[in-house]
Amino acid sequence: NPLVCKLVIKLPVPTPEDNSPDLKRLKYSLKNLGYNNICIDYDALKTIPEVVRDQNWEVTATIIRSSPAPLLSRLESGDTSADNYGIVFDIGTTAVRGRLIALENGKILAEETTYNRQRDYGDDVISRIAYCHRPGGIEALQRLTTDTLNKLIENMTCSAGIENENVSLVVIAANTIMVQLLLAINPEPLRLSPYVPAVNSLPLIKADRLGINLGKHCYVNIIPVVASYVGGDIVAGVTACSMHNREQTSLYIDIGTNGEIVLGKRDWMVTAACSAGPTFEGGGIKYGMLAINGAIEGFELPNPFDQPLIKVIGNKSPAGICGSGLINAISALFSAGILGQNGKFNSESACKRLRQGEDGFEYIIVEAQQTSIGKDIVLTEVDVDNFVRSKAAIYAGCQTLAESIGIDMSEIDNIIIAGTFGSHIDIDNAIKVGLLPDIARDKFQFIGNGSLMGAYSAILSLEMYQDMLKIADTMTSIELSENRLFMDNYVASLFLPHTDMSRFPSIITWH
Amino acid sequence: NPLVCKLVIKLPVPTPEDNSPDLKRLKYSLKNLGYNNICIDYDALKTIPEVVRDQNWEVTATIIRSSPAPLLSRLESGDTSADNYGIVFDIGTTAVRGRLIALENGKILAEETTYNRQRDYGDDVISRIAYCHRPGGIEALQRLTTDTLNKLIENMTCSAGIENENVSLVVIAANTIMVQLLLAINPEPLRLSPYVPAVNSLPLIKADRLGINLGKHCYVNIIPVVASYVGGDIVAGVTACSMHNREQTSLYIDIGTNGEIVLGKRDWMVTAACSAGPTFEGGGIKYGMLAINGAIEGFELPNPFDQPLIKVIGNKSPAGICGSGLINAISALFSAGILGQNGKFNSESACKRLRQGEDGFEYIIVEAQQTSIGKDIVLTEVDVDNFVRSKAAIYAGCQTLAESIGIDMSEIDNIIIAGTFGSHIDIDNAIKVGLLPDIARDKFQFIGNGSLMGAYSAILSLEMYQDMLKIADTMTSIELSENRLFMDNYVASLFLPHTDMSRFPSIITWH
Repeated sequence: NPLVCKLVIKLPVPTPEDNSPDLKRLKYSLKNLGYNNICIDYDALKTIPEVVRDQNWEVTATIIRSSPAPLLSRLESGDTSADNYGIVFDIGTTAVRGRLIALENGKILAEETTYNRQRDYGDDVISRIAYCHRPGGIEALQRLTTDTLNKLIENMTCSAGIENENVSLVVIAANTIMVQLLLAINPEPLRLSPYVPAVNSLPLIKADRLGINLGKHCYVNIIPVVASYVGGDIVAGVTACSMHNREQTSLYIDIGTNGEIVLGKRDWMVTAACSAGPTFEGGGIKYGMLAINGAIEGFELPNPFDQPLIKVIGNKSPAGICGSGLINAISALFSAGILGQNGKFNSESACKRLRQGEDGFEYIIVEAQQTSIGKDIVLTEVDVDNFVRSKAAIYAGCQTLAESIGIDMSEIDNIIIAGTFGSHIDIDNAIKVGLLPDIARDKFQFIGNGSLMGAYSAILSLEMYQDMLKIADTMTSIELSENRLFMDNYVASLFLPHTDMSRFPSIITWH
Repeated sequence: NPLVCKLVIKLPVPTPEDNSPDLKRLKYSLKNLGYNNICIDYDALKTIPEVVRDQNWEVTATIIRSSPAPLLSRLESGDTSADNYGIVFDIGTTAVRGRLIALENGKILAEETTYNRQRDYGDDVISRIAYCHRPGGIEALQRLTTDTLNKLIENMTCSAGIENENVSLVVIAANTIMVQLLLAINPEPLRLSPYVPAVNSLPLIKADRLGINLGKHCYVNIIPVVASYVGGDIVAGVTACSMHNREQTSLYIDIGTNGEIVLGKRDWMVTAACSAGPTFEGGGIKYGMLAINGAIEGFELPNPFDQPLIKVIGNKSPAGICGSGLINAISALFSAGILGQNGKFNSESACKRLRQGEDGFEYIIVEAQQTSIGKDIVLTEVDVDNFVRSKAAIYAGCQTLAESIGIDMSEIDNIIIAGTFGSHIDIDNAIKVGLLPDIARDKFQFIGNGSLMGAYSAILSLEMYQDMLKIADTMTSIELSENRLFMDNYVASLFLPHTDMSRFPSIITWH
């Protein structure tokens, strides 16, 4: 039951007795197929007389089942129903992911990821919003977004061997800032209290009006957003994993630069964004890096005072450490008593890999000669400090959300971890450092890129898309940045794993 | 209750406790005003964050009350409700008329008429359709239409001293061919049996997409058409004179190159087009001309054998004779017995103004020395023949329409004569020549330009516009060109006034 369908219609041939207009004839046939009150795109309208007569009154009508009325976006001669493709995008601040889908059967024909070209104007959203102050700044960022999309479209349609022309619909899930920049809507109010987004649900927009290189009949459908820092990516993910149908209470966590979290079940959902900072993507960490080739992601300490066993992505010489590597390293060092609950290195430890560095104590993960960068890869106390603040923001966010609806985190039935980064987390270690709540391990579920998964669900299912509209509209957003309770919870979380150890019953601390 | 309205809204100011999106805030306020499920134009959407903040959360929303959902076409800061203008057009094959209206109170601020620039490619619709076969032909004719509209817009907004930007909506009533050429829809099927128009009802279309020079928020609403030769001009006129609310049976006649006729009452309406030919606009008549300065429009014969009393438009020396002049002349000559019932001059008449010309007998209306063209202005038997065929087409059309629903023309309660030409007709003479049915004179009503009148009603009244949609959809069109009954009626009408004199009881023939 996809959001856009192609209907093959044999129109009644006009006669002197029945010479009603082509459009009336078409609308009548559509009505018989259950499509009443249909809207028609002007570009489609213009082609009517030729199209209906070209293949002896057999036509294929492309219908976008939008609300409040279905839209006839394209009219073709003959039966073209086999050529009905859709593209879904997850537009992230850093990366953009696309998927090309045969709408007939839901088959994924291609999938591509690339960097968001907006990064030319800043790695984080705040610097991009700042760039919008320049004359033409908003338009420049819009163009970079569509350039990114166009590149993905080109790659995907080429690799699948299909015509751009035959893409009927694009569905986009993105964070709120990416949505506004795609639409060239001034994002300034997003970064100022009280953090008000311009839009929530969005109308269908023609792809060519946004500069997207697809047929002129192609429309763009954007998954609605909730708040300035809770976007359509979250709405898409939450719906895709069916939280809104569950009887049990679930917590959805998308860990990235902005940890977005949703707590809820069938009857209600609350959401918040906790600015975790870029730590999990390697930012603010001396040798931090993205989870790409050369990044240390595995870290174990079989013998606390000996050298660690590390695992590097792509089996290369290490060049730095990524987010999941950090979690594993800090967890292991903490378990070994080398790192204290306060995030400081135990200077009295017998560990020979500890030394005084320029930023205070530091732990040598890998010596220079074994790296590809010719320098010792170390973990400093400043790194640990930044990490602790990031994980505290996420944990305190989850805690505050739970408290806001009067439950304890132990009462949460399921925790859904979304995001590509999330899939690489070791749950035990993440709990040990106090990033995730200490509940039964089998309650955790990884879903990968929830945003793309949701966009894919939406394009293939009208009902799913309608659920997203409803969810975005009814989800309650809690603003944490000025929330007193959150501040208290945050401060209490600035510890490994937490100042209140009763919250982490399964963690036995070393001393 | 105009089709487009401006609502002034004070939006609730966002706070940290209520930081829902600008659009949600706006939609909520609109819902409270009774506008639910509103659609929003992308250009309006883009401006939201700036517009709402510019005048401290007071905005003016322009809403087009279209179906199936109202459309928010423009959003402005502050209260701009006083600047809400509409333009209506009647696009005829020959002339285009426009009216600029203050939508607040319905006041007409300017009215202009000009020639349709499409005339460069032919005086009649058939030659224009033929022109569309050339590459780029359709687009050229579209451009000429919008050039014509743009010129009228410029004149009207200048003379009224208002900004183009503040025109919210354009409503257009036009014949079917003009509608299709305005929209660049191939008109070819309109001229071939079974004469099928491409469209009937039409979506709202942005003015700038058609090349109309108005604000980019301005939309165009086109009155729906019925058949290839029964356009929105007729639907507009019929509705404006409230035929659809009358208990009595009315006949609506728009006499022009194509006599369009509608017969009906509250419950039903039937319509037909009878190709009267260009006679009434001076075409096919040796000294025929449009009803402009120099045209003979009055003709009386106080003494049958003496010279006629003529009246010339603009009190000039005569240059020719116009449609209403022809009716008056033929009627007078017929009454005087100079012209026989068969449309031939009575060669045995004592009238000295009759002579043998190159086309057979002819009657000298004005001698050369009294004209501005230096030639005798005559009425030839060929002229009379052409005229008789034109009037017969109209009369037979009316008769066939009446018979098709099983009534006699004498049962018609009202006859509404529309069209600028119609207003100049002398009813007695028109009946005497057999153009109009012989019923009580007080049953005739002149409404002038019904098309412009209807477009004006539609822009000022949503209900009226909705009535037009319904009427266009339910009106039954009867194709006369291949109708056996019509052909019989037509042949019987090729007489002055008719072969069946019992149909014209008030006309006493001379012999």
